[in-house]
Amino acid sequence: MNRLALTVVAAGVALTSLGAAAQFQKPEDAIKYRQSVMTVMGNHLGRVAAMVQGRVPFDAKTAADNAAIVVMMSKLPWVAFGDGTDKGMPTRARPEIWKEPAKFKDLENKMMADAEKFDAAAKTGNLDNIKAALGTLGRACKSCHDDFRNEKYSN
Amino acid sequence: MNRLALTVVAAGVALTSLGAAAQFQKPEDAIKYRQSVMTVMGNHLGRVAAMVQGRVPFDAKTAADNAAIVVMMSKLPWVAFGDGTDKGMPTRARPEIWKEPAKFKDLENKMMADAEKFDAAAKTGNLDNIKAALGTLGRACKSCHDDFRNEKYSN
Repeated sequence: MNRLALTVVAAGVALTSLGAAAQFQKPEDAIKYRQSVMTVMGNHLGRVAAMVQGRVPFDAKTAADNAAIVVMMSKLPWVAFGDGTDKGMPTRARPEIWKEPAKFKDLENKMMADAEKFDAAAKTGNLDNIKAALGTLGRACKSCHDDFRNEKYSN
Repeated sequence: MNRLALTVVAAGVALTSLGAAAQFQKPEDAIKYRQSVMTVMGNHLGRVAAMVQGRVPFDAKTAADNAAIVVMMSKLPWVAFGDGTDKGMPTRARPEIWKEPAKFKDLENKMMADAEKFDAAAKTGNLDNIKAALGTLGRACKSCHDDFRNEKYSN
């Protein structure tokens, strides 16, 4: 291991989650990663929702900046739902994710497409556009959560 | 609450973390968010490190895509270190973050600047450039973790 590698390891970067053949070495690495992505995505979606609902003043640039984060996050969690990642640490992922992969994939694609549209709407700077696109994206989130996410965490 | 709001709440988006005056309603919302950002950042930094170390084949586009995520994440966690977020759920954040804010801010700015340089290096597609910039960024991570992050989580 060279000096750079040691430096990065010392920095606490999650190198253990990276095998040569897989991005996650252990199921819990994948679960923690996908939950983290969802947390970040939900937070930034929520910041735009707060503007849409009038709880914070609308600012077009802030909305666009948040939407850019949402669309980037929307692409990330899927690689972390690999076989064997149904348990390993507390998760709300339902077994149906691995029993109905085609249906899960459809909803994943719908969410990513709706996130792209949300990002495009945010770039227009028009609050009505943003509100409509956020509603569509929110429904895409909900439809997948309804079918594939439990209310409670289990190991 | 209008229909859109209800849809978004039903989708499980973390709206509770968004007050009118603060992005996080409870300390645990801030802690969970900043930990999630760090997890995502570390994962994508690690994916580039795996290329630099030769554990996975170098692919310039993949490196650049990962670096773009790293630089976006590098800007996010700081707002979640507000007063009162030193406890609330298990955290490795040391009290020194709030006792030495100027020093913390300096290291925060250094890390963001080094992440920008890492992103720029990744865009060149040159592995040597990427390796050098990753080393610099890794040292910025480490210097902040050394001073402001505990080894173990505490409540």
